[in-house]
Amino acid sequence: MWGVIKMVKNKMLYDIIIIGGGPAGIISAVTARKYYPKRKILLIKNIEKGVIPCGIPYMFTTLKKPEDNKLGNTPLKENNIKLRIDEVIEINKQKRKVITKNKDEFKYKKLILAMGSQPIVLPIEGINKKGVYTIYKEMNYLKKLKNKIKKSKNIVIVGGGFIGVEFADELSKLKNVNVSIIELLPKVLFNSFDKEFSELATQELIKKEVKIYTNLKIEKINGKEKVVSVSLSDGKTISADMVILGIGAKPNISLAKNAGLKISKGGISVNKYLRTSDKNIFAVGDCSEKTDFFTREKISVMLASTATTEARIAGCNLFEKFARKNMGTIASYSTKIKDLTLGSTGMTEKTAVERGFKIIVGNAESFDKHPKNMPNTSKIKVKLIFSRPGIILGGQVAGGESAGEVINIISTAIQKKFSLSELEDLQIATHPKLTSAPTNYPIINAAQNALQKLK
Amino acid sequence: MWGVIKMVKNKMLYDIIIIGGGPAGIISAVTARKYYPKRKILLIKNIEKGVIPCGIPYMFTTLKKPEDNKLGNTPLKENNIKLRIDEVIEINKQKRKVITKNKDEFKYKKLILAMGSQPIVLPIEGINKKGVYTIYKEMNYLKKLKNKIKKSKNIVIVGGGFIGVEFADELSKLKNVNVSIIELLPKVLFNSFDKEFSELATQELIKKEVKIYTNLKIEKINGKEKVVSVSLSDGKTISADMVILGIGAKPNISLAKNAGLKISKGGISVNKYLRTSDKNIFAVGDCSEKTDFFTREKISVMLASTATTEARIAGCNLFEKFARKNMGTIASYSTKIKDLTLGSTGMTEKTAVERGFKIIVGNAESFDKHPKNMPNTSKIKVKLIFSRPGIILGGQVAGGESAGEVINIISTAIQKKFSLSELEDLQIATHPKLTSAPTNYPIINAAQNALQKLK
Repeated sequence: MWGVIKMVKNKMLYDIIIIGGGPAGIISAVTARKYYPKRKILLIKNIEKGVIPCGIPYMFTTLKKPEDNKLGNTPLKENNIKLRIDEVIEINKQKRKVITKNKDEFKYKKLILAMGSQPIVLPIEGINKKGVYTIYKEMNYLKKLKNKIKKSKNIVIVGGGFIGVEFADELSKLKNVNVSIIELLPKVLFNSFDKEFSELATQELIKKEVKIYTNLKIEKINGKEKVVSVSLSDGKTISADMVILGIGAKPNISLAKNAGLKISKGGISVNKYLRTSDKNIFAVGDCSEKTDFFTREKISVMLASTATTEARIAGCNLFEKFARKNMGTIASYSTKIKDLTLGSTGMTEKTAVERGFKIIVGNAESFDKHPKNMPNTSKIKVKLIFSRPGIILGGQVAGGESAGEVINIISTAIQKKFSLSELEDLQIATHPKLTSAPTNYPIINAAQNALQKLK
Repeated sequence: MWGVIKMVKNKMLYDIIIIGGGPAGIISAVTARKYYPKRKILLIKNIEKGVIPCGIPYMFTTLKKPEDNKLGNTPLKENNIKLRIDEVIEINKQKRKVITKNKDEFKYKKLILAMGSQPIVLPIEGINKKGVYTIYKEMNYLKKLKNKIKKSKNIVIVGGGFIGVEFADELSKLKNVNVSIIELLPKVLFNSFDKEFSELATQELIKKEVKIYTNLKIEKINGKEKVVSVSLSDGKTISADMVILGIGAKPNISLAKNAGLKISKGGISVNKYLRTSDKNIFAVGDCSEKTDFFTREKISVMLASTATTEARIAGCNLFEKFARKNMGTIASYSTKIKDLTLGSTGMTEKTAVERGFKIIVGNAESFDKHPKNMPNTSKIKVKLIFSRPGIILGGQVAGGESAGEVINIISTAIQKKFSLSELEDLQIATHPKLTSAPTNYPIINAAQNALQKLK
């Protein structure tokens, strides 16, 4: 009944308005609340039932029910942040107001744009056939996708990045389902790992009977109304009753563009304080451009942990002169495929070389518990990349689950520019049930290995 | 047959001699080999069948057989380091030679002392009765101890530090065995944790039916030849057919003292390059004094990871002018009791206050996977201690197994003096199966919590 009553036009004034309800939006709002306890804050999002982005692949088999991956509104409630489910259709930066689809208007003093990204759809023949899906971050859509997956026999995943391999790992647990990955690059996860680590990922996927097609493009999706197969650039045809596109995303910029904000290739332009070309508007997360930590060049990184770091900086910088700087993204990733945990942070060897760095590489292998006969011991492998003067630029880890936090030790070291010998002398807590031995800790040994090459 | 033939007096010259075959000795030797590939290196140790120190508690139930915790000689063989099983009984620093029990003499250019420590034996009545054991790091001794443990019904562990609680955790798995801990301080693990974390450890031990007696001394060991009970300082008597002393260790200094080297309260005196009062002799690990990272005061820390860090520095500093500095120990520990992982690094809140630091404390609790409905999710709790200007001084973590490497992120941050806001902006890799959510990472949240108190 209420729905049909025509809404009275609302003009409401807020100190801070955030557009977008993903991790970047939520953390912007929560941080703003912590720094500005008395300000009126509003968050507007157009998806009522959001999901935790990184959890999406696990909604299909690992989690008991899709609702377990719901992105709830508790942090907003707890922090006294007003919430509107609506779509902002216009930003008027002169009048400092936003206008929504429901014809509401809200005035702001400071605005944070956290509109995220949308999946890239390939411009190929047959892309609109039934059975072709993108990863859209909305609960009901993903529930439907789950039901469709249950009825599928041949699933083709386009893209062998993180989302692609995680979907493949999960879906290969289903009985009577054939899973294939089509990847344009020479190996899976090749944007974030050097070849020896990508090869480890490949081996795990092969154990799970995932078929991997690399160095190949998908050219055409075949079938009448519904997909029946896909054609690849080498002429092969693969049977498919479902195609999942996991080839990346593009920033949501149209709102900002229409408002006259400066836009760059990578998204909404921001300075090091995460301010856009308008001094009262900030932008964070997937919708904004990213700066590389090492080179200060613009790079494309869409990552929840990068988005939340930016949200914490912008949330602090809104009023007063805190002026906290965004140091640029180091791009830290981790994933687990079958029993193998992989982590990458900073530059890979190939990225560093491509960008013209003179480098030294250190490698080490060890066990992640000690002695190695302790129960549930896995091998752990660490690679560190240093600049020629001996400053850490990047690292990769493969091992058991502990590798998921070992990579963060290297991330932490990168952010304060640890030297080779500082890492060789690193003091760490070790325990038989938890870590490698103090005599054989792989980060330390990889640093020592690199130091030998420097001499 | 060979044993009875009188050995011909040997005078052999080595570039580098290391005394001691524990982690400090082995890593000194291996590091020296890496930095000085052509030098002749000899390691002399008096225990033929050594064990991995941290693994000792796990020789009784977790590991299949005691030999699984053997400290092998492979690193020495692989690095072309000569090994002698013998006891050095004299160091002649004028003539730069060491003399052994077997009457061999070896000349050195540089000598590294890594003689370790020996268990403290309480000077109380009945200490020499049968059934009273210290933790002596030798395979045959520990095998005998294992056999005795199997026949025991009431085991009293004196000391509620790491070794004490780890023994209690392990031995409480045995059927029909009652395990008690006697601790002088108000709580177990109280030298390394604040009370709320010590309390978590206590609760885990209670779940395993370990009886904990705190604020109490052991006054007397009762029985005829063999222990039957122990008397405590509050008048209580506890039945005991075995007493294990886990109250700490004292540095092995007599050899250095007799050689005329400077000795301090904490062990053999060393400068920041780990040189003793003799320029050709270095000392590392439990036998040498320790300097605190924060205050530069002398402190007592006996820890394999500290010992191996020192070994890497001394092994590098021997010849030439590398002059790598020992930054002092931050004392990083971790342990696992039942299902709870605990880690501590740097100063606790109580230590910082005792030492006169003005501090800010930040706390956070989260889940170690995300969403929290992922399988095998544990709670994770982080406490960070900052100096008033906002520099990290210490941290404590309690959680699932990942906490064992999370504590090392904090250790790493301490070593480069991360500020509050640098930790709030920390970039980390996150994944549903491996870590807390990027929106709820406990190190970041604890830093944010502390920052709020600073304002």
